[in-house]
Amino acid sequence: MKAPIEFYFDFSSPYGYLASHKIDALAAKHGRAVDWRPMLLGAVFKQTGGAPLTMIPLKGDYSKRDFLRSARYHGIDDFRMPSPFPIATHAAARIVLWTKAREPEQAARVAKALYRGYFFDSRDISNPDIAADLAAAAGVHRAGARASVDDPAIKEALRHEVDGAIARGVFGSPFVFADGEPFWGLDRFDQIDRWLAVGGF
Amino acid sequence: MKAPIEFYFDFSSPYGYLASHKIDALAAKHGRAVDWRPMLLGAVFKQTGGAPLTMIPLKGDYSKRDFLRSARYHGIDDFRMPSPFPIATHAAARIVLWTKAREPEQAARVAKALYRGYFFDSRDISNPDIAADLAAAAGVHRAGARASVDDPAIKEALRHEVDGAIARGVFGSPFVFADGEPFWGLDRFDQIDRWLAVGGF
Repeated sequence: MKAPIEFYFDFSSPYGYLASHKIDALAAKHGRAVDWRPMLLGAVFKQTGGAPLTMIPLKGDYSKRDFLRSARYHGIDDFRMPSPFPIATHAAARIVLWTKAREPEQAARVAKALYRGYFFDSRDISNPDIAADLAAAAGVHRAGARASVDDPAIKEALRHEVDGAIARGVFGSPFVFADGEPFWGLDRFDQIDRWLAVGGF
Repeated sequence: MKAPIEFYFDFSSPYGYLASHKIDALAAKHGRAVDWRPMLLGAVFKQTGGAPLTMIPLKGDYSKRDFLRSARYHGIDDFRMPSPFPIATHAAARIVLWTKAREPEQAARVAKALYRGYFFDSRDISNPDIAADLAAAAGVHRAGARASVDDPAIKEALRHEVDGAIARGVFGSPFVFADGEPFWGLDRFDQIDRWLAVGGF
């Protein structure tokens, strides 16, 4: 069995959400699984001096236009720019880590439900109760999911994930490793496709 | 005759250089000409708080890897990471503006010669004499090109170009307008291709 594709994302990242529609099919095309790895872009930005795209002069206005255009280009019809934006994503990330530890085969399903809840249904997934509702609707135990948000072990696991991501050079979302090779952005999915097909170029 | 594609670029931008290999064919495919518009990313960054990619923590190391990988992906074999990098690009930009005013049909040829001089032959095109040599080899009058770098009218024309670019929302390189629609990055050439084919989406 070949190694899974590592898919790092932040739940408040529009390009991460668009990429979440594409990563499973891309990996499956090459006989790979996907390891869904939520992280916190806010923590990354503290170390790198980055900022949410929409807050950057000029780039902010462009990015809001590009999110919508890129969704149309990729045939993704369940994207809307949410408000408030951005939001804290600790609760959603912790619920996914908890799901991975407990029922790993459910993790992608839970992640997609949380992502879509925020970006299409305008649910504020920074609220642990709302995040737990969405996870429960995706099939996991609601009380367990809700409790995981305040669980010191899960909090520590998320800190460890974020630190590990930064140590590997993750600075944005989505960020993919394919056999160790780093690719930033949905823009690089064409390069990932070729990389997996020919084993690097 | 349909409107030309407006191709904004900075002579110290690796992705701009890669895009310069692709823009003419993309435009020609749709019966368009290209307006080659050199600008100064340094002046843009002063207004937007941006910085050269290679100097940003984490992103810097990634970008140096991605420049080379993207060149290979796109079949561009005349890219090398130059040193020093980045460089001031006023001289090269002024020579292109001077060429456009005098012999507009030569502008793309001169721009490509200057770009390749820096990114493949490691010529320091921040030096007006070297930039003039490269422009002369591409077919324009050397003394005229050299003089343009210190010509107050050309200096003012470049300031005007940069201010105009910022006013239109240009914040990076390459930056393309196709029928007024803004596209940032070589990554968006696939979207430009569809945009021109179907008249927007």
